[in-house]
Amino acid sequence: MRYDIAIIGAGPAGLSAALNAKIRNKSVIIFGEDSKALVKSKSIKNYLGFTDISGCELNDKFKESLTSYDVEYSKERIQTVYAMGDYFALSLKDNTMVEASSVIVATGIDLKKDLKNEEEFFAKGVNYCATCDAALYKGKEVVVIGYNEESVEEANFTAEIVGKVSYVNMYKKGVKLNSGIDVIEGEIPLGFIGEDRASKLEFKSGKKLSADGFFIIKDSSKPQRLIPSVKLDGNHIWVDNKMATNIRGLYAAGDITGEPYQIMKAVGQGQTASLNAVKYLSKLKKKD
Amino acid sequence: MRYDIAIIGAGPAGLSAALNAKIRNKSVIIFGEDSKALVKSKSIKNYLGFTDISGCELNDKFKESLTSYDVEYSKERIQTVYAMGDYFALSLKDNTMVEASSVIVATGIDLKKDLKNEEEFFAKGVNYCATCDAALYKGKEVVVIGYNEESVEEANFTAEIVGKVSYVNMYKKGVKLNSGIDVIEGEIPLGFIGEDRASKLEFKSGKKLSADGFFIIKDSSKPQRLIPSVKLDGNHIWVDNKMATNIRGLYAAGDITGEPYQIMKAVGQGQTASLNAVKYLSKLKKKD
Repeated sequence: MRYDIAIIGAGPAGLSAALNAKIRNKSVIIFGEDSKALVKSKSIKNYLGFTDISGCELNDKFKESLTSYDVEYSKERIQTVYAMGDYFALSLKDNTMVEASSVIVATGIDLKKDLKNEEEFFAKGVNYCATCDAALYKGKEVVVIGYNEESVEEANFTAEIVGKVSYVNMYKKGVKLNSGIDVIEGEIPLGFIGEDRASKLEFKSGKKLSADGFFIIKDSSKPQRLIPSVKLDGNHIWVDNKMATNIRGLYAAGDITGEPYQIMKAVGQGQTASLNAVKYLSKLKKKD
Repeated sequence: MRYDIAIIGAGPAGLSAALNAKIRNKSVIIFGEDSKALVKSKSIKNYLGFTDISGCELNDKFKESLTSYDVEYSKERIQTVYAMGDYFALSLKDNTMVEASSVIVATGIDLKKDLKNEEEFFAKGVNYCATCDAALYKGKEVVVIGYNEESVEEANFTAEIVGKVSYVNMYKKGVKLNSGIDVIEGEIPLGFIGEDRASKLEFKSGKKLSADGFFIIKDSSKPQRLIPSVKLDGNHIWVDNKMATNIRGLYAAGDITGEPYQIMKAVGQGQTASLNAVKYLSKLKKKD
């Protein structure tokens, strides 16, 4: 099955895009989890229509707006979006593909800074998807730097394949790791050291940890890693006033398009992106 | 008093701009009335946070979001916005001025087409503000083409000054006009005829009405009449992704910036315009 619209991100921009696409009778799949930034907000006073509401409650209301529509939700993380001409192929962790005629990127933005040399050593010892790439390190030593719940699962999976796993716990919760995994607590990673490829992870304490490969498992990856060849504007995805990116059929909305990082701005852009994606789809159909 | 921000338009974009400006502690005045397009909507299903709400109710909720803030409301119509360098002067009907350091234009858009030759004869027999310009026609014959409640008041006022008033009733409600005013019902104006200036109004029926001056009293005027020298994009005001216009300190949001003509898009742009106006104000202050 090919979806009309695949939405990457289930925060305000993604939910708004889904709602508008469903009202126009499009088939929709959303990838992602509740927006942490939204859910964690204690008090929101600038979402017009409410006077003072918690982020958690507002998120529930957002999802309620969608309950009467048939939207498919997936918590899978999209690894890469490939533009195939008249459609897009979205690769999942297990390398299966989901197809959609158009894509709306509403991933939000990761305000964490990269580690030192993270970009330089990307695919040279530094990776972002253990499930995809653990096989590269069979029998070797691997460090998983884990920022979220998913990283625990990824570390356990990796341990079954590689020689040895060390897990740097940045998730800051108790983690249930398989026996045999070294857990490193209370150290703050600074960056990578190496010649042609990353060979050591350096911590703020001055300690260094050698390994053959390093996996950084965090919530969002940079747009250029998610969508090769997407045009950027600084750290953001460049969009025109239709929320169209430089790639035909690919739209973006919300924090990923730039400041202000605000809810109303995000839902507004989600709506604009969605309605323009719908227009794109009807042109595409006429062409067939 | 000079306001930090003057907002022209009290629809979703204007209210959103006001809310965000107040949260940042700016002094705000809004000019305008409830959005008719919003209030008339029977059922709104694509405003995230609600499942199905009438436009009237949603408008009430929007205004409730603002009740705890000190926002000044005015139903006066702004005639012209003059950019004075570090501030703006907004002229009212009685030619008094209101000053503001920045302006957000959120007037919405008038989907009615111009009458034939309306643009060509603007200020050459065709005018938009009777209160401002009736004095030009002392003792002469004037036609008021009235599309709204305000037009009744304007016609009555004009009749006290000029020789004779004919009122073309496009308001489609019973109108209380002073005695001595000719009321023309059931005729549809097509356009103006004349050499150097408008001398006749032509109706669809083929009838023609001669006069020295014509006043068109409708809800919104074209952006270029409201703000001379604002850059347009077709019928819309051109904005960048900060919702800034080509005039420093002047922002625009909502339908006036282009399609889609939608509520969430409008509130999102209102927020973006407002937060960028606030940034502009803080730079302006540093300069002092």
